Amino acid sequence: MNWPKSVTIKEVGPRDGLQNEKLILSTSDKIAWIDRLSYTGLTYLEITSFVHPKWIPQLADAVEVAQNINRNPSVTYAALVPNMKGLESALSCSVDEVSVFISASETHNKQNINKTISETFPILQEVIAAAINEGKTVRGYISTVFGCPYEGDVDYNQAFRICEKLFTMGISEISLGDTIGVASPRQVEDFLNQALKLYQPQSFAMHFHDTRGMALANIVKALDYGISTFDSSLGGLGGCPYAPGASGNVATDDLVHMFEKMNIHTGVNEGALVDSALFVQKKINKPLPSHRMAMYSHSKG
Amino acid sequence: MNWPKSVTIKEVGPRDGLQNEKLILSTSDKIAWIDRLSYTGLTYLEITSFVHPKWIPQLADAVEVAQNINRNPSVTYAALVPNMKGLESALSCSVDEVSVFISASETHNKQNINKTISETFPILQEVIAAAINEGKTVRGYISTVFGCPYEGDVDYNQAFRICEKLFTMGISEISLGDTIGVASPRQVEDFLNQALKLYQPQSFAMHFHDTRGMALANIVKALDYGISTFDSSLGGLGGCPYAPGASGNVATDDLVHMFEKMNIHTGVNEGALVDSALFVQKKINKPLPSHRMAMYSHSKG
Repeated sequence: MNWPKSVTIKEVGPRDGLQNEKLILSTSDKIAWIDRLSYTGLTYLEITSFVHPKWIPQLADAVEVAQNINRNPSVTYAALVPNMKGLESALSCSVDEVSVFISASETHNKQNINKTISETFPILQEVIAAAINEGKTVRGYISTVFGCPYEGDVDYNQAFRICEKLFTMGISEISLGDTIGVASPRQVEDFLNQALKLYQPQSFAMHFHDTRGMALANIVKALDYGISTFDSSLGGLGGCPYAPGASGNVATDDLVHMFEKMNIHTGVNEGALVDSALFVQKKINKPLPSHRMAMYSHSKG
Repeated sequence: MNWPKSVTIKEVGPRDGLQNEKLILSTSDKIAWIDRLSYTGLTYLEITSFVHPKWIPQLADAVEVAQNINRNPSVTYAALVPNMKGLESALSCSVDEVSVFISASETHNKQNINKTISETFPILQEVIAAAINEGKTVRGYISTVFGCPYEGDVDYNQAFRICEKLFTMGISEISLGDTIGVASPRQVEDFLNQALKLYQPQSFAMHFHDTRGMALANIVKALDYGISTFDSSLGGLGGCPYAPGASGNVATDDLVHMFEKMNIHTGVNEGALVDSALFVQKKINKPLPSHRMAMYSHSKG
C-alpha cells in the first residue's frame, strides 16, 4: 500500500473525551493535563468547548482552561464553538482555531441542537465568517456520517451536501465523525470512494469511536485512501470497559503505537504520551480503556 | 476491494481461550458450552488439547470433553496434539481433525516444548503421517510468526521454511499465529506479499491476538490479500481488560459483527453467539472483554 509517510493526530481528549466522563475534573487538573499533552509531540489539541455550561457541565470552565494553559508554539490549540456567543468567548481566550459542528442526520442534529440541518447553516455561516475575519482557521465536524442512533444508516449524500456548504463557507478541514462507532471498513471504503471524487484526501480528518472495536481497522482503510489526519482521545478517555458499553474515541496511544509499528511517522513521543495518560487516569480515578494503558498497568504489576 | 464473499471462522475458545483462564471450568460446563457453540452456525470448533495435564491443567479432561459432546454433523471438531501420545488419545475420541504446532522463533519453540525447530520436525512428521493414515486432516499452527517474546522480530523466512516442511508432510492448512499480538497491518502486508508468491491464500488461516488492539485491522488487511479463514475466541475469552495486559485471541463476536457489517458472510447467528458467550461468561464469573459483550451487558443494564 502507498500509505502516507506521516500522519497528523488531533487530540480531542480534553473536549470529546472529558465531556463523556462523569467525574468532573478540577480546572487546575485540566490545565495540568493539557500542559503535559503540549509536550508529547502532538501538534493539535482540542482543549475545550465553549458551550453553555448546562449542556456540558464538565466543560463549564472553558474560559479559565483556555486562558491558563501554557502554550507551546508548536501546538495548535483549538476549541469547539456552537454559536456566536461561544465564538466570542473563544476569541477572548485567543484560541488558534475553532471548530463548528453539525450532524449528517436530521434527527441527530435536531436532538443535539434543536434545529434542522438547514436552520443550522446560517448559524455556522455567521460563526465561520466572523472567525475567519479574526484570522482564525475553522474546522467543521460532521457527526453521524456512518450511522445515527435515531435513523440508522445515513445517506452519504447528506454528508456530501454538508461538505459542499461548509467548504464554501471557508472551512479548512472537515472531520467526518462516526459518532456511535458503527462504521465498518466496507463503509469507510464506500464513503471514501465517493467522497474522493469530490474532494482531496487532505480536505478530511476521520473521527472514529471504538464502540464495536473497528476504529483501528477503519483508520487503516482510510489510510489506504490517502487520509492522513485522525482524531483520537488519549487512553480512550470517555469510553471505558469498566463502564461497559460506553462509546469512546479511538485511543491516541493505541493509534500512535500502530502507526509507529507501520513506519508511519506521528512525531509523538510514546513515553511522554504514557506519562500524560497516567496523569489523567489518576485524576479520573479509574483505568483508561486503551490497550496500551492496560499493558502498561500490567507490566507495572 | 475485492474481498471474499464469505469467510470461515475457526473457534478456538475452548482450547486457546480456556487455557489462558485461571479458573478451571468443570468438565460438564465445558461440554455444555461446546454443545451451545455447535449450534451457532460456526462450522469449526477446536475443542481441547491432548497435552500432558501438568502443562495445561485447564485441559486435563480432554478425553472426557471430546467423548461427551453432542456432535453436530455440520461442524468439524478439532483438537491440538503435541505428539503421538496426544494423537492416540485424540483418535480414541474420534476428533475430525488434529492440529500440530511449532514456533517460527527458535527460542519460543525451545521454551514451549524444549526442542529446537529442527528437532521438532520428525515428531510432527510422525504425528501427521499417522493422523493422515487414520483418515484425518491435519492443521498446522506456526506461533510467533510476527514477533517473539524472547527474540523480538522474527525473519519471515523462518515461517516460510516451516510452511514448506509442513505442507510437504501433508498439512491441509497452516494457521499463522501472532502469538503475542504485536503484528501491525504493515507487517501483515509485508508477510503476505512474500507468502502469496509461494502459496495460495486458501493455504492459510490467520490467528491474531488483540493485545495491542490491532487484530481487526490486521484481519481486514489479510482480507485485502484474499485470506478467508480466521481463528478467534468467543468473547475474547483468555484475555480480559479486568486482568489488564492479558493477551487474548481476537473475539469471535466482534469479528462476526464486523464481517456481517462488511457484507461478508460468516454463516453465524449473532444471537446464538451471544447466548453462548453469556453462558461461558457466567461460568468464568467475570465479564468477557469483547466489545460486543460489553455493549450487550450495558444494554441490559
